[in-house]
Amino acid sequence: MFSEEHQLADLLNQFNTTADTGQNRLVYSEQWLHNQKTLILLGQKYGAKATVDDYGNVSLEFPGQEATLPIATGSHMDTVRQGGRYDGLYGVIGGFCAIQKVYQQGSLPKKPLRLISFSEEEGSRFPAAFTGSKHYTGQQQQVAALVDETGITFAQARENAIKQLQAMPDVRRQRAPLPANFTELHIEQGPRLSQAHQSIGLVTGIVAQNRYNVTVHGQANHAGTTPMAQRQDAIATASRLMASLYDLVDKSSNSLTFTIGEIRVSPNVSNVIAESCTFTIDCREESDERLATFLSAMNKVIKQFDNVTIEQTLHVPATLLSQALRKQNAEIATQMKFPFRELFSGAGHDSQIMSTVVPTTMIFVPSKSGISHAPAEYTKMSDLLIGVALLTASLSAQANEA
Amino acid sequence: MFSEEHQLADLLNQFNTTADTGQNRLVYSEQWLHNQKTLILLGQKYGAKATVDDYGNVSLEFPGQEATLPIATGSHMDTVRQGGRYDGLYGVIGGFCAIQKVYQQGSLPKKPLRLISFSEEEGSRFPAAFTGSKHYTGQQQQVAALVDETGITFAQARENAIKQLQAMPDVRRQRAPLPANFTELHIEQGPRLSQAHQSIGLVTGIVAQNRYNVTVHGQANHAGTTPMAQRQDAIATASRLMASLYDLVDKSSNSLTFTIGEIRVSPNVSNVIAESCTFTIDCREESDERLATFLSAMNKVIKQFDNVTIEQTLHVPATLLSQALRKQNAEIATQMKFPFRELFSGAGHDSQIMSTVVPTTMIFVPSKSGISHAPAEYTKMSDLLIGVALLTASLSAQANEA
Repeated sequence: MFSEEHQLADLLNQFNTTADTGQNRLVYSEQWLHNQKTLILLGQKYGAKATVDDYGNVSLEFPGQEATLPIATGSHMDTVRQGGRYDGLYGVIGGFCAIQKVYQQGSLPKKPLRLISFSEEEGSRFPAAFTGSKHYTGQQQQVAALVDETGITFAQARENAIKQLQAMPDVRRQRAPLPANFTELHIEQGPRLSQAHQSIGLVTGIVAQNRYNVTVHGQANHAGTTPMAQRQDAIATASRLMASLYDLVDKSSNSLTFTIGEIRVSPNVSNVIAESCTFTIDCREESDERLATFLSAMNKVIKQFDNVTIEQTLHVPATLLSQALRKQNAEIATQMKFPFRELFSGAGHDSQIMSTVVPTTMIFVPSKSGISHAPAEYTKMSDLLIGVALLTASLSAQANEA
Repeated sequence: MFSEEHQLADLLNQFNTTADTGQNRLVYSEQWLHNQKTLILLGQKYGAKATVDDYGNVSLEFPGQEATLPIATGSHMDTVRQGGRYDGLYGVIGGFCAIQKVYQQGSLPKKPLRLISFSEEEGSRFPAAFTGSKHYTGQQQQVAALVDETGITFAQARENAIKQLQAMPDVRRQRAPLPANFTELHIEQGPRLSQAHQSIGLVTGIVAQNRYNVTVHGQANHAGTTPMAQRQDAIATASRLMASLYDLVDKSSNSLTFTIGEIRVSPNVSNVIAESCTFTIDCREESDERLATFLSAMNKVIKQFDNVTIEQTLHVPATLLSQALRKQNAEIATQMKFPFRELFSGAGHDSQIMSTVVPTTMIFVPSKSGISHAPAEYTKMSDLLIGVALLTASLSAQANEA
């Protein structure tokens, strides 16, 4: 195992920075651009043909004996702000290592293999996520005019970065044709595998998700001179509404997650009664039906409160990934004696976009303490290598079957 | 009444700006400095001797027949950010008009009259309030190193402004000796007088006040991948704690005010479980005993919640103002047929500082809809004139009694 470990560790080090502030590989940033360039050169060195589309998705295609649709793997190159070393990048680098191992096995696989490095999945620079895989799968997007926090538009940032990638030697400039299927290797970002001491998670599906902004309207006034009975205190109402919603969650299904992560108060001054209090709701469920049941109960609770408005900001239905590909991976994992479980993903992934056009599966490896989107994100090397080994066997099987 | 109205309206216009963003007369700012200079020139023109101390408090002393301690009136020259046209300034300009009327009555009053324009009361530029009246009454303060939002220290801002005031012709540079007593004319900043259609409020006292920062500690994690049972969600706990506190308030005395005006969440991102949630408590009561009873119950509620820390940021005991001065004003108001009531002040005032050293009273006029600390702050001219008329009669009586 030494040389495999050496290669994986080396590449992860090469594509990550050592900054205390974690990884800040926002889409189209300098570090992002450097990494996509480095990946293209790496692929070309090992015989791949590189394609870069107009969103900066990189496809590296390695030859097969037959001119059929390729078997694809990969993940996204961007990170959140102050992100970890594995989210996204592990699927790109692990995918590259797995493809190399398939070719090291001897004869050329029947089908070509493709490594995809999606431009953007996190939605951390511009208020839009999955822009890479959405473009890859041909979805129309209205993102050109979105601005980042410095006022640069998506269109400006993209044009500058893509120009440099597409100007590289032997790079095809086009949207890559769709592959035969897609396997994404990724860290779990939750605690279930690490708590169960299992090295592999085979993903059955990705949760349905709705998000809302809830605003309680009050009236700003002096905290000392306004009698309690004459107040419209937005925080008084909001705190009771939030507490009622958490009570409702306690009575709901085990597969529900419910998060109020953001609160914004106006004017937010200690001696002024709040004029308004807006909070977000992030609500996820494995089942669309159970989510709808909860949302209906949630709306009933909200309607019991006066002066409240609710705005839906996101709706993503549950995604079921390929049963056939998961079954094949389960058989391989059993043969290889890797401890695994099947599980739902509570996080969104490029796979949910890819699964709308091609059979798609995901392989998870454990996240220590379930921590992700933080510099402390960590997966031990032995688990990283087991993930790559399973992906290698899976790609080899897929690329050599009839 | 025409000329009195004309003079009061003219002076209020002269000392306020017409900006849409309201009054921004932060202590030691250009506009503040301009106003204190203008006031000194105005006082000198009408025969007053001007004194400016090292905090920028302006004292204008008008002569009496006897060389006794002066009868003082006044209020503060600073405003909050985006403040109104009356808070503070009405007591300075109204005080000037009242003193003028006393002198227009004919013979010189027995005792001298003094108009005070305190430098600062609001605590809006630096995190310290009542710095003017505290200096005036000889209290030690640790404020020199405090910085405003642009990084300028209190000491720097003060030195620059005071130098200009103290360099004016015929200005005495010293802390003025304490007056015999103090009467402050001020807008109510609450709705009680306007709702009761009364023009005058005679202030019995100023509420006791405690402020706190309460922090709920949680653990940041992914909103989609962390099972509900494994979360430490700071907002879940904070919302239940805040709701419990509001429930407790509902059962408390009518004279209690309780305000959570400010909430700060970290990291405050919709899809991340909150690491911490800090909220402020502003709690006021007419009675120190009833406040202590409530605070004890409040602390019991807070102790029922885990991972919560509480920090006290302010404690001001209740202040009782002079009964004798209030009684005198009530008799005058009755004679003049002004509809009045006695009431507690829910807001803090320079009077609570002055009352620690000399007999002090306050006269309130109504605030339309109770609105204050906002450009919409308004008191109709007839009420402003009634306040000045009562102050005139009161100063005349005080200055002429044995």
